[in-house]
Amino acid sequence: MGFSKSIVARGRVIGGGTEPLICTPLVGRSRTAILDELSSIFSLKPDLIEWRVDFFEGVADMADVIDLARRLRRDAGDIPLIFTLRSEREGGQPVTLTDGHVAALCEAICAQQVVDFVDFEMSAPAEHIVRVRTACHSSGTQLILSYHNFQETPDAEQLHRTFCTAQSLDGDIAKVAVTPRDLADVLVLLMATLRASRELRLPLISISMGGYGALTRMIGWVFGSSVTFAVGQTSSAPGQIPLEDLNVVLTILRKSLPGS
Amino acid sequence: MGFSKSIVARGRVIGGGTEPLICTPLVGRSRTAILDELSSIFSLKPDLIEWRVDFFEGVADMADVIDLARRLRRDAGDIPLIFTLRSEREGGQPVTLTDGHVAALCEAICAQQVVDFVDFEMSAPAEHIVRVRTACHSSGTQLILSYHNFQETPDAEQLHRTFCTAQSLDGDIAKVAVTPRDLADVLVLLMATLRASRELRLPLISISMGGYGALTRMIGWVFGSSVTFAVGQTSSAPGQIPLEDLNVVLTILRKSLPGS
Repeated sequence: MGFSKSIVARGRVIGGGTEPLICTPLVGRSRTAILDELSSIFSLKPDLIEWRVDFFEGVADMADVIDLARRLRRDAGDIPLIFTLRSEREGGQPVTLTDGHVAALCEAICAQQVVDFVDFEMSAPAEHIVRVRTACHSSGTQLILSYHNFQETPDAEQLHRTFCTAQSLDGDIAKVAVTPRDLADVLVLLMATLRASRELRLPLISISMGGYGALTRMIGWVFGSSVTFAVGQTSSAPGQIPLEDLNVVLTILRKSLPGS
Repeated sequence: MGFSKSIVARGRVIGGGTEPLICTPLVGRSRTAILDELSSIFSLKPDLIEWRVDFFEGVADMADVIDLARRLRRDAGDIPLIFTLRSEREGGQPVTLTDGHVAALCEAICAQQVVDFVDFEMSAPAEHIVRVRTACHSSGTQLILSYHNFQETPDAEQLHRTFCTAQSLDGDIAKVAVTPRDLADVLVLLMATLRASRELRLPLISISMGGYGALTRMIGWVFGSSVTFAVGQTSSAPGQIPLEDLNVVLTILRKSLPGS
């Protein structure tokens, strides 16, 4: 045990100490599709479920979003939920909401106390980060401060500064997802993750996306990434592999590595 | 296809282009044990078999070694054989042979044309390397020039120089096996392998040994290592994983990575 930091939610260490935690995304468009997806994913027993709200056709109607979040909370049982409205600039679906509306939606969701984590992008205006952070911390919701780059992998120093920024902004978890242009970029992301996992106090989620990056979805935890995203029914980002395949690889890795 | 360089032996590309090639070691002490081991390993269909001659109780008797090599050649069918007398200074078993005797034994084995590869250490005296190289090349045997470090992982520049030395000495394959003191060392080995695979013409075998290094036995091929060593019946170095487990992981990796 102990390659990555554990995460606590719903009164317990998620996954009971098993590394890494596996998160599956919900990317349905309609309420029905999302509930069906949850029902199918539920049987795969992921450690976390992320609702990618930007895929939801009712995203612009706050009451609709809150109502569906309540229903997801009920149907997800004890599995912690992440609420994520990924912006188009960071690889999400196009939505009509402004940054301000997104922050307000996150505040409203926190107030309902129906999700365990809110993912919010560090590229958002600072005042919105502060608003969402306040809403999170006054409601017992954890704040994932995230950075996504679908073009390239910044160099190791820049990646480290990004992890540090998430901690400086008082996030509870730092998430960094980048795109390798070259196999060497995959190693750069892993090296930066290892450094940040040793120097920072908060749990990390790091991903190298796309084909080459698929490696990091299987081995990133060894270098300090606490969570990996796997396909339940439909992938939400390039390079995600099916949860069943991931579990097979992880079982072998865990018995091959010392202390895991 | 195309993460690592292919290797040709017995008139064909070994493995038919599948990456990586899997090599299992024979580490029996007696003739009977070695033949039993080969028989058990044969059914696992490795791409290569390495006879670790330093484990053989008859290693000091050249006639015994040659006779057993002939028998192994027959029993191994079409699976290419590597002949390796690992020195004690590079992690092998203690043997009574001098460096000169080892070189003479390699020359004699080449002359018999019963093995496809001879592994010879770059730490041996230069004159012996030249002798063994000449014997290899005049008999159609390929020369693996190797470096092992059971204490640490040299830095990236030193690793690169080691790969380059194998090419400068006119080896056919460069093998580098090192020991990580830290997880970062595993990434250093992979980064150096990636660089050498791009800059050098010869196929590479690179391994980070021990528990953390077990990762490289599964993913090293993506960064340019053509061969990985797996346990058939008994491991010959720290961190080797069972061939069946390795095959399961490789099947999933191959379908997750682009162009593999």
